[in-house]
Amino acid sequence: MGVVVQNIPRADKAVVEGLARYGVATIHEAQGRKGLLGPEISPIWSGAHIAGPAVTVSLPPCDNWMIHVAVEQCQPGDIMVVAPTSYSDAGYFGDLIATSLKARGVAGIILDCGCRDIADITEMGFPVWSKCVFAQGTVKETLGSVNIPVVCAGQSVNPGDVIVADDDGVVVVARKEAADVLAAAQAREEKEAASRKRYLAGELGLDVNNMRGALAAKGLKYIDWQGD
Amino acid sequence: MGVVVQNIPRADKAVVEGLARYGVATIHEAQGRKGLLGPEISPIWSGAHIAGPAVTVSLPPCDNWMIHVAVEQCQPGDIMVVAPTSYSDAGYFGDLIATSLKARGVAGIILDCGCRDIADITEMGFPVWSKCVFAQGTVKETLGSVNIPVVCAGQSVNPGDVIVADDDGVVVVARKEAADVLAAAQAREEKEAASRKRYLAGELGLDVNNMRGALAAKGLKYIDWQGD
Amino acid sequence: MGVVVQNIPRADKAVVEGLARYGVATIHEAQGRKGLLGPEISPIWSGAHIAGPAVTVSLPPCDNWMIHVAVEQCQPGDIMVVAPTSYSDAGYFGDLIATSLKARGVAGIILDCGCRDIADITEMGFPVWSKCVFAQGTVKETLGSVNIPVVCAGQSVNPGDVIVADDDGVVVVARKEAADVLAAAQAREEKEAASRKRYLAGELGLDVNNMRGALAAKGLKYIDWQGD
Amino acid sequence: MGVVVQNIPRADKAVVEGLARYGVATIHEAQGRKGLLGPEISPIWSGAHIAGPAVTVSLPPCDNWMIHVAVEQCQPGDIMVVAPTSYSDAGYFGDLIATSLKARGVAGIILDCGCRDIADITEMGFPVWSKCVFAQGTVKETLGSVNIPVVCAGQSVNPGDVIVADDDGVVVVARKEAADVLAAAQAREEKEAASRKRYLAGELGLDVNNMRGALAAKGLKYIDWQGD
Amino acid sequence: MGVVVQNIPRADKAVVEGLARYGVATIHEAQGRKGLLGPEISPIWSGAHIAGPAVTVSLPPCDNWMIHVAVEQCQPGDIMVVAPTSYSDAGYFGDLIATSLKARGVAGIILDCGCRDIADITEMGFPVWSKCVFAQGTVKETLGSVNIPVVCAGQSVNPGDVIVADDDGVVVVARKEAADVLAAAQAREEKEAASRKRYLAGELGLDVNNMRGALAAKGLKYIDWQGD
Amino acid sequence: MGVVVQNIPRADKAVVEGLARYGVATIHEAQGRKGLLGPEISPIWSGAHIAGPAVTVSLPPCDNWMIHVAVEQCQPGDIMVVAPTSYSDAGYFGDLIATSLKARGVAGIILDCGCRDIADITEMGFPVWSKCVFAQGTVKETLGSVNIPVVCAGQSVNPGDVIVADDDGVVVVARKEAADVLAAAQAREEKEAASRKRYLAGELGLDVNNMRGALAAKGLKYIDWQGD
Repeated sequence: MGVVVQNIPRADKAVVEGLARYGVATIHEAQGRKGLLGPEISPIWSGAHIAGPAVTVSLPPCDNWMIHVAVEQCQPGDIMVVAPTSYSDAGYFGDLIATSLKARGVAGIILDCGCRDIADITEMGFPVWSKCVFAQGTVKETLGSVNIPVVCAGQSVNPGDVIVADDDGVVVVARKEAADVLAAAQAREEKEAASRKRYLAGELGLDVNNMRGALAAKGLKYIDWQGD
Repeated sequence: MGVVVQNIPRADKAVVEGLARYGVATIHEAQGRKGLLGPEISPIWSGAHIAGPAVTVSLPPCDNWMIHVAVEQCQPGDIMVVAPTSYSDAGYFGDLIATSLKARGVAGIILDCGCRDIADITEMGFPVWSKCVFAQGTVKETLGSVNIPVVCAGQSVNPGDVIVADDDGVVVVARKEAADVLAAAQAREEKEAASRKRYLAGELGLDVNNMRGALAAKGLKYIDWQGD
Repeated sequence: MGVVVQNIPRADKAVVEGLARYGVATIHEAQGRKGLLGPEISPIWSGAHIAGPAVTVSLPPCDNWMIHVAVEQCQPGDIMVVAPTSYSDAGYFGDLIATSLKARGVAGIILDCGCRDIADITEMGFPVWSKCVFAQGTVKETLGSVNIPVVCAGQSVNPGDVIVADDDGVVVVARKEAADVLAAAQAREEKEAASRKRYLAGELGLDVNNMRGALAAKGLKYIDWQGD
Repeated sequence: MGVVVQNIPRADKAVVEGLARYGVATIHEAQGRKGLLGPEISPIWSGAHIAGPAVTVSLPPCDNWMIHVAVEQCQPGDIMVVAPTSYSDAGYFGDLIATSLKARGVAGIILDCGCRDIADITEMGFPVWSKCVFAQGTVKETLGSVNIPVVCAGQSVNPGDVIVADDDGVVVVARKEAADVLAAAQAREEKEAASRKRYLAGELGLDVNNMRGALAAKGLKYIDWQGD
Repeated sequence: MGVVVQNIPRADKAVVEGLARYGVATIHEAQGRKGLLGPEISPIWSGAHIAGPAVTVSLPPCDNWMIHVAVEQCQPGDIMVVAPTSYSDAGYFGDLIATSLKARGVAGIILDCGCRDIADITEMGFPVWSKCVFAQGTVKETLGSVNIPVVCAGQSVNPGDVIVADDDGVVVVARKEAADVLAAAQAREEKEAASRKRYLAGELGLDVNNMRGALAAKGLKYIDWQGD
Repeated sequence: MGVVVQNIPRADKAVVEGLARYGVATIHEAQGRKGLLGPEISPIWSGAHIAGPAVTVSLPPCDNWMIHVAVEQCQPGDIMVVAPTSYSDAGYFGDLIATSLKARGVAGIILDCGCRDIADITEMGFPVWSKCVFAQGTVKETLGSVNIPVVCAGQSVNPGDVIVADDDGVVVVARKEAADVLAAAQAREEKEAASRKRYLAGELGLDVNNMRGALAAKGLKYIDWQGD
């Protein structure tokens, strides 16, 4: 503890921008159903959709000092990922630090803890995903670290990994896999676009996906209602 | 497991339309405070208010195959009720199946599990009540059943029962009791309309409901503040 | 149990109006990080921000009779604070009582239990903070008390204390400390306004708050990325 | 509500005694992985293992009046299944009613709510499965029903169904399926006994269950550690 | 914050010893069903049953410094009541402080947070009730207060109040009401002893408590099973 | 997914045996308060205390196929660490696999999911830490991986890391840090032994740890009780 890692590598900018075009569910599927942060993380306002390299923050329970340290390590477009070393629902993040992050071009923040001043932050349009809304104050007493690997909402996040977040939640893509995941997401989206047309025309998923044979092979039976 | 029951009976259409005029709280009270799904079920967007016959889906944890099977059993106006046989917060339902259900006239879906693609589903205005928002993918490996009795969020739901859902949550009305419940809901609403006028005029519930005598009989005492 | 305390003292009206100008987070900090109700309490609609003296209601689980008794004890501008004596998520409060409270000028209600009819209550613009949305009905069988000290969402609330509530949640200020807390909130807000300007200009919290020395004294180290 | 159904049919006594020889996990598997009450239900003391016909009790939140009514409907060997109509963690059951049930030969009780006096009940050796231990008192004000279908911890239980409970939890077997489930449990147990011998001898599950081919067919790859 | 209140009054010693003869459930009922700490508090080992005056500790999340301060304020027979000002599951209490408390004659400790070293503490037989078992360490950075009113697991506890704890949980009795509660507990226990004899003899609660008339008056109906 | 990594490096055997002499709390502190699995993980029986190299298993929700694959990768003394890729409380582990693991000398298993057959497993004395006890069955349909990095109960675990588990829970020590952590644990234990003696003699933590000066410097005030 007590280390700030500088000059981290970041995923390629074009790849990050490419990933920003796809939703969290698509990217989670495209990379083999991994990297999805738990459902306890949700946006404080609806409609935000961002992607960017992670600047990670490991900090003590109820102590937000290291967020201030981490701001200096952020480049425009980065997403800060805040992970207390023990469970906390305190409000680590409020409108003042939001003002600072926005002023420096940070794209958003992911908090595995609480957020406060949500009316102000919503009005300024800064994207925040958090575990809860809670005004409980924090102290500035104990060191943590910036840009070390962390576990956030059940997923490992390394500095420079790509974070994608929307109304469905948050997914992390490993930096070195980002280009492959982008390609897979594009392919998936094209396939889904074709299916969507058929669904819109009233076709059944049973036929769009050719499921009838497999279901019969598993033994699915159709019977008529017997009751009254 | 592995059974699809076809040609289920449905509650009378006029009764269903009648029930659609009343809120979940009113119907829950009108049928003697039963049938209310637990508070863990909530709408993914505000303002939807629907009623319709239930098409029930019993399926394995993290496996949404049977939803595709169930679509074929739905008639316009039906409401799909999805109940995993073991706890799951995975995202069984997303924008593709929502597109299919909407195209076929299904009125909405109740999920005792997770939902994803909520930005898209909200934009298309398809009504969904779910336990959580989570993009976690599901598989298509194991059979379940359609139109058998299920337990959804703590309540028994039989195929053809009437589901009513609004911002307060979801209530189920037994098919054979639906007409009686409709009558009771109408009666209750009329009584409440009369009370509402008196409340609007500033009258107290103590007087509107003649509670003073019963409270005194139970021993309620009025005293003056004694502190500083 | 079974006592209604009348003629409670209330915090000074000018002080209450002063506190209404500040958010829950600011007031919680200004009084030394105490008095904050737990994060399980949230508003049923966004944007309400109220302050007022507390009329407290202690009542049994799943029994809302005493809310009717408490309405008579409310003056315009009061905030009702409802605390069941045992855990309950039932819907103690709906549109009828909301109509009554609004008609009598009550500013809002805090429920350590459930709320129902939220579509109607939202439409009428009556401010409600509750633990959950649940249509489950309650009975009117057992006495409780009005204007005795209660514990609501983990905090002691005495009758006449000042309640402040906004999108972040709810905080209680002791009646006799209210004037001092108001002064401290004003001072804090002025200090934050100065900081906010510097953050908007792109300055770092490390500099705005002179943190670099203290961090170095604690042993914070800056190193360069070593990986690939 | 307010109905006591008398003279319910019960599963065959020999079948019930047969089921009592098998654990909850075995019976759950033997009947196709259904009927298992949720993991929130656990025994208040370790080592009890019972089976018996269900006498069901549907009652209001925080009101245990109907348990007294239900005792009269119990025969020796029955198991009482208590399901509040709304969530409650109150202590519906304590040492006095335990004394009564034990005196009348009831085999045990399943509570989808709280239990109290657990030191005394443990000392008397009466088997109890409950959602929590909590001394919170209940009232005797409102009617419920005995021997109607209930939902207990997420499972439908009908009067006369067979309940089996052990340290793993509780499973319900439909009355008319009990004989078939017993046969399936016996078959499963014999198969497992054969496997157990091979495991004891150090054989791998991969071989005992012939899994290697299926795994390879799905694409499982074996590689060597590459790191340092 | 930052205050240690010395020379608190304590409930009469004979009264405390009297209360120690009764269980938590009995005392909770005897004082009108109030004062019961929430079900999230449980003993780390079974069979402890203690009563004593409360020494209260209000401290920050994840900081156990004030427990050391509080030890000095304890007299033999006291029970320490530890209440963080914000939710924490950290392990505030382990075998070293347990050794200290035991050496000084403290009767036990109630923790609205976590406990660790439970194998050692169980072996030394020191009574502990806590919210969870968790080894997470705490710091010693921030002041709290000793012997001020606190909220612990949802109940107000004042210094000098009587705490009673057993396998069912923990109840607090106000210092000035302790003698009356003792008398009521004695009366209740005598009444229950008489009932227990009748239950042991096989009598029904319906008859022991004369409930049949009240049930009939509420409209309870007995019918025969109609199904197959 | 679908990879089995063979021939992983393991922490030095003497170091593992050394770590086995210390409790989870001591090791967690000795390595700077990191690596502690969440409090949702607890032992199914009391008194087990083990240490060993981790064999990690990443598998799908409700599918335990990969546990069978992983057994073959275990050496005597290893500890299996099972982490579903999505939340699951199903019973991945029962007495048959426990028999197999015990026969092959595996020291124990850590499950971020459910366990079943706990009566049998307890009787055979095989050490298990799990999230819950639940008999819910799993399938064998979908591949996972063995000996890849996993997140288990909120902590990153790499194959070959040292797991230590006791009644307090589970802690993971990075393979390459294990020798240093062992030295730190020994040092900590010696220091605590000295303190323990002084506590046993009745000395206060305030004096044993020289806290009085620091407390006074922070502003702690001692006052006398003012109330009645």
